[in-house]
Amino acid sequence: MNFASDNWAGAAPEIMDAVASANEGAAPGYGGDDLTKRVEARFSEIFERDCAVYFVATGGAANGLALSVMTPPYGMILCHEESHVQMDECAGPEFFTGGAKLLPIAGNAGKLTTNAVAKALAGFPHRPPHGAPASILSLTQGTECGTVYSADELKALCNMGHEAGLMVHMDGARFANAVAATGLSPAELSWKPGIDVLCFGGTKNGCIAAEAVVFFDKAKACDFEFRRKRAGHLWSKMRFIAAQFDAYLRDDLWLKLATHANAMATELSEGLAAVDGVEISYPTEINEVFAVFPDGAAEQLHEKGATFYPWVTPGDPAGGKMHRLITSFKTSPSDIAAFVSSVCNAC
Amino acid sequence: MNFASDNWAGAAPEIMDAVASANEGAAPGYGGDDLTKRVEARFSEIFERDCAVYFVATGGAANGLALSVMTPPYGMILCHEESHVQMDECAGPEFFTGGAKLLPIAGNAGKLTTNAVAKALAGFPHRPPHGAPASILSLTQGTECGTVYSADELKALCNMGHEAGLMVHMDGARFANAVAATGLSPAELSWKPGIDVLCFGGTKNGCIAAEAVVFFDKAKACDFEFRRKRAGHLWSKMRFIAAQFDAYLRDDLWLKLATHANAMATELSEGLAAVDGVEISYPTEINEVFAVFPDGAAEQLHEKGATFYPWVTPGDPAGGKMHRLITSFKTSPSDIAAFVSSVCNAC
Amino acid sequence: MNFASDNWAGAAPEIMDAVASANEGAAPGYGGDDLTKRVEARFSEIFERDCAVYFVATGGAANGLALSVMTPPYGMILCHEESHVQMDECAGPEFFTGGAKLLPIAGNAGKLTTNAVAKALAGFPHRPPHGAPASILSLTQGTECGTVYSADELKALCNMGHEAGLMVHMDGARFANAVAATGLSPAELSWKPGIDVLCFGGTKNGCIAAEAVVFFDKAKACDFEFRRKRAGHLWSKMRFIAAQFDAYLRDDLWLKLATHANAMATELSEGLAAVDGVEISYPTEINEVFAVFPDGAAEQLHEKGATFYPWVTPGDPAGGKMHRLITSFKTSPSDIAAFVSSVCNAC
Amino acid sequence: MNFASDNWAGAAPEIMDAVASANEGAAPGYGGDDLTKRVEARFSEIFERDCAVYFVATGGAANGLALSVMTPPYGMILCHEESHVQMDECAGPEFFTGGAKLLPIAGNAGKLTTNAVAKALAGFPHRPPHGAPASILSLTQGTECGTVYSADELKALCNMGHEAGLMVHMDGARFANAVAATGLSPAELSWKPGIDVLCFGGTKNGCIAAEAVVFFDKAKACDFEFRRKRAGHLWSKMRFIAAQFDAYLRDDLWLKLATHANAMATELSEGLAAVDGVEISYPTEINEVFAVFPDGAAEQLHEKGATFYPWVTPGDPAGGKMHRLITSFKTSPSDIAAFVSSVCNAC
Repeated sequence: MNFASDNWAGAAPEIMDAVASANEGAAPGYGGDDLTKRVEARFSEIFERDCAVYFVATGGAANGLALSVMTPPYGMILCHEESHVQMDECAGPEFFTGGAKLLPIAGNAGKLTTNAVAKALAGFPHRPPHGAPASILSLTQGTECGTVYSADELKALCNMGHEAGLMVHMDGARFANAVAATGLSPAELSWKPGIDVLCFGGTKNGCIAAEAVVFFDKAKACDFEFRRKRAGHLWSKMRFIAAQFDAYLRDDLWLKLATHANAMATELSEGLAAVDGVEISYPTEINEVFAVFPDGAAEQLHEKGATFYPWVTPGDPAGGKMHRLITSFKTSPSDIAAFVSSVCNAC
Repeated sequence: MNFASDNWAGAAPEIMDAVASANEGAAPGYGGDDLTKRVEARFSEIFERDCAVYFVATGGAANGLALSVMTPPYGMILCHEESHVQMDECAGPEFFTGGAKLLPIAGNAGKLTTNAVAKALAGFPHRPPHGAPASILSLTQGTECGTVYSADELKALCNMGHEAGLMVHMDGARFANAVAATGLSPAELSWKPGIDVLCFGGTKNGCIAAEAVVFFDKAKACDFEFRRKRAGHLWSKMRFIAAQFDAYLRDDLWLKLATHANAMATELSEGLAAVDGVEISYPTEINEVFAVFPDGAAEQLHEKGATFYPWVTPGDPAGGKMHRLITSFKTSPSDIAAFVSSVCNAC
Repeated sequence: MNFASDNWAGAAPEIMDAVASANEGAAPGYGGDDLTKRVEARFSEIFERDCAVYFVATGGAANGLALSVMTPPYGMILCHEESHVQMDECAGPEFFTGGAKLLPIAGNAGKLTTNAVAKALAGFPHRPPHGAPASILSLTQGTECGTVYSADELKALCNMGHEAGLMVHMDGARFANAVAATGLSPAELSWKPGIDVLCFGGTKNGCIAAEAVVFFDKAKACDFEFRRKRAGHLWSKMRFIAAQFDAYLRDDLWLKLATHANAMATELSEGLAAVDGVEISYPTEINEVFAVFPDGAAEQLHEKGATFYPWVTPGDPAGGKMHRLITSFKTSPSDIAAFVSSVCNAC
Repeated sequence: MNFASDNWAGAAPEIMDAVASANEGAAPGYGGDDLTKRVEARFSEIFERDCAVYFVATGGAANGLALSVMTPPYGMILCHEESHVQMDECAGPEFFTGGAKLLPIAGNAGKLTTNAVAKALAGFPHRPPHGAPASILSLTQGTECGTVYSADELKALCNMGHEAGLMVHMDGARFANAVAATGLSPAELSWKPGIDVLCFGGTKNGCIAAEAVVFFDKAKACDFEFRRKRAGHLWSKMRFIAAQFDAYLRDDLWLKLATHANAMATELSEGLAAVDGVEISYPTEINEVFAVFPDGAAEQLHEKGATFYPWVTPGDPAGGKMHRLITSFKTSPSDIAAFVSSVCNAC
């Protein structure tokens, strides 16, 4: 009954096999090997567009490095106040960018709206060189609250950002879950509505440590190579990240894993909603469920071995009483059933 | 009819004279001269406490350097969403600190409340090493909205900050105005309620370019010397800043200048309030007046040669229609009378 | 005939097996899992001392993060002018430390001497706050020129550094090779002579991506946790680095792999030295051979499929004609024989 | 008998008068005033070329900010190992640039040669993304050793730099002295031989605190405005720096002051050279004299009230026995005579 985080699950067997296979023979270092080049190119197919693609091992590195080529060091990044770049990377974006400012914006269920972004821009007017000039709009898809932006919502936000002279970044640590949830194509959820740079996550969805930074305009990738190297994020044995993505993208494995995790979350959400006294805080659109349990219930569940954490954020609608439950590619229907049953007993 | 900014005024004659006098003879560079040492020591008398004092030429440098010794580079600085460090220093605090995060907090009339700070801390819980750990509470006295914290308000905020493990910084670009407005002693508005580090401004109140960073616990000044030097803020001919403060602190000049500026603002505020159709947006407690004029009036006043700017901020209570008017040591009652009369005609 | 770099080899089978095994079951993220804790503790046994140990995926990250907790951002790091931190990390140390200065020092065969360090310190005297204060002495063991510091040399350098108030860092990307070469214990080549912080490499010696930063005084590790996180170097699925080290340190695998690579280099060096017209530039003490071939020979060898690179550095004793050949755990005696035979034919 | 530094002298009377005059009336802040605009434009006349000009208060700020717009944060700055940017700014260039690497290069009497620069470039070959890419060649004119580059030397160095893809920076803290010494025009010592950006000093030569960063290609000034602001180097009352330059550039005051200081140094150098046992270490070409006194003589001179400092640098030709003596616009022939006489007595 592990719902603590999608990173508690290990890696999918197909990923492990690919890593093992990649160990054959000698290969040039630092991404000069054929496998890396081939898998980088694969992204252009998946996204139906010629992309510049860079692999790193963590989501924090992907976000930080991506943002660092999109803003001057004194620029301002508009983001949701509960986004990972704001709350969970220990000021990593500030570090990677050399000191850019993050402007946190509130929004229901982890989502920014054009109204909120417009208000933030209006309240922080461009007064060079006094105010930090707004340079990036950062969106998270799927969000930290387990919700998903529609293509239309993305388009409206991207348009607003571009009109204000911003580039638009997408933290796609759970991009696979969003694609699986919407049934839209990767392109329809990224560059088509206007995303400039996507951090395409693999780690949370069955890889060991694999994230890809995807620039939809190759020229905008700029000096990413140098920044990745200086930050210690260029692997010498790069084939071992490439191999993970090779398997991840083959035969839609990434979507199969995400579809399963999403389905488990839906099942969990519906199961919990049916229990008297349990409230579901946000719509369950991907693999995250946010629930408020009756007093004392969480403690009982923990005692029975269930793992999940309280979830506290600036926008918390539940007065500090919410818990987050995450499903993964490894979660089984019986895990869900057992947990829901325990919840019934505890409530 | 210049109400654009307190920095449009030049320097007070006493300041100019002191600078001229300081030019006599040779003197060691980089603050090793007797005048600098004597004036630094003078701060300990003014504040009734043994202080470590460092001179720089701008408020942005004072704030940035002060913050940089108070936080690790991944720390988080809580500040008002309309504070100078957040809105007017082009991400300077992020630069000086090496990437600390600023967490902007809303509050009426430029002031933080303990409720708002408590909510911000609760919403961004300490989860090492994931979230940036809160390290500093930054307050502005007098505020960007022309208001003043009472000693009790400061004490409550400082206590809350210290209990949460934060150091408390005060941006005192208009500290003189606050002291003059409250009639309290410098100590009563700084270390007595719990301020750890004060950026004591001179520039806006009649100096050429003079700011002092005052550490009320000398040990906390830490490596300020090195940071000031590396940022190009250690003057070789330091006596020319020291001389400004020498005159500024002599015979309460600083308080006389501020008292006058405050009185002019009060007169202006009362004059404007009496005009039909003009609304005063915030209490006028120091040398800043925020007013909403009837449509078209501001343009008419500008045409007649009055200088003042629109004021747009995230917390703007007036829907983008507010203007800021600033008085200084140079503002005369006849300036006020002439302007109010023009306003009457324009409204 | 691959002598391009030790990172062209993949990973040792024992490492691959351990990674596969680590995939079993759910495990807490971010290093909270049992395996990570156990393997971290294993370092204290290997080094016969209670250590603070942190895992990252690359040598550049290990060096940069280690240095960043050892120096203020305006400090100065003394290092060999051909060291990896100076020449091969794209100004990574400057980035991680927030702007520390590297002072490159010349020395034969990649090694610093106490004379050279003393001269560097004397020529850059402590003049606070003007000069960047020397804060770290960084040594590389085995060196970039394939040589090894003796325990006595290390002791003399560390003593000199400590007397000057510096902390001593060791870049041990090839520490295993140095231990294997000298027959000394890990402790005898690290904290016993005075090393404060060791970057213990696994990647070049048969791991996938595994480096450990080892603080021999736990208190000096300071805020490493926060710095690792903010730089995107804290793995969510940390067990996959821990597993590599688990196998690496078990049954002396690390020393077996390094001993083999060293032996292959010795064989290669002796074979090449016997060829008329080939000169060996530095003593071959670990797994690196530096050779000058007769004009045209390198090109012929490349045509036959041998991979190796020219090696150009500030201290190059061979006027730009040197090549570097690296052996690894995978190099076989027949690889050596075939290459030496090709060299004979080409010369 | 003050020869400690050119910054021990105060400011020239013409400078003081100009500052006093500038205090008249109200003026827009942050450089929007007419005086600032007029004086900025004056630089284009002095340099016979349309320039972008920015004022700051210190040489460290001028150098750091100039370099920060000329290099990416991971670039490499080639400079003399005894240059101010390397030895005297507490790692300021690393701070302002966000982590660029300084590559110190040796050279007699403070001057770089094309041979030395070529060797440095060859020894640190371009290997993207591994080595920090060389981005700037920084020259100091006049040098820290009191010598001057000829226009031909500058041209050869600039050509080499440009061919290697570098921009060329000139630290001109004593540019006035170099112009005075050579009799060449400002243009002939700056953009004509190929300098891209000049830090034009006023402070050491009779100003209070005034430095100008001059971009000879306006487009290369890039985002200097933002960087100056965020570093706290944009003065709100900018007219007080502009006024200094107004007087400084009027009627060739800057050259008169420098010519006098240079003449005094020549007189001092010749006087000392005639004393038995005193050795002059470098050619005296501007306002700095480097001398080795017999043992015990310096102490005697200090006792008699003479101020001057020992001078220790990596390239020190005198084994740590050298002293530096600096003359200024204020030094009088009788100061020189008195000092030389004291030296005669002490030797």
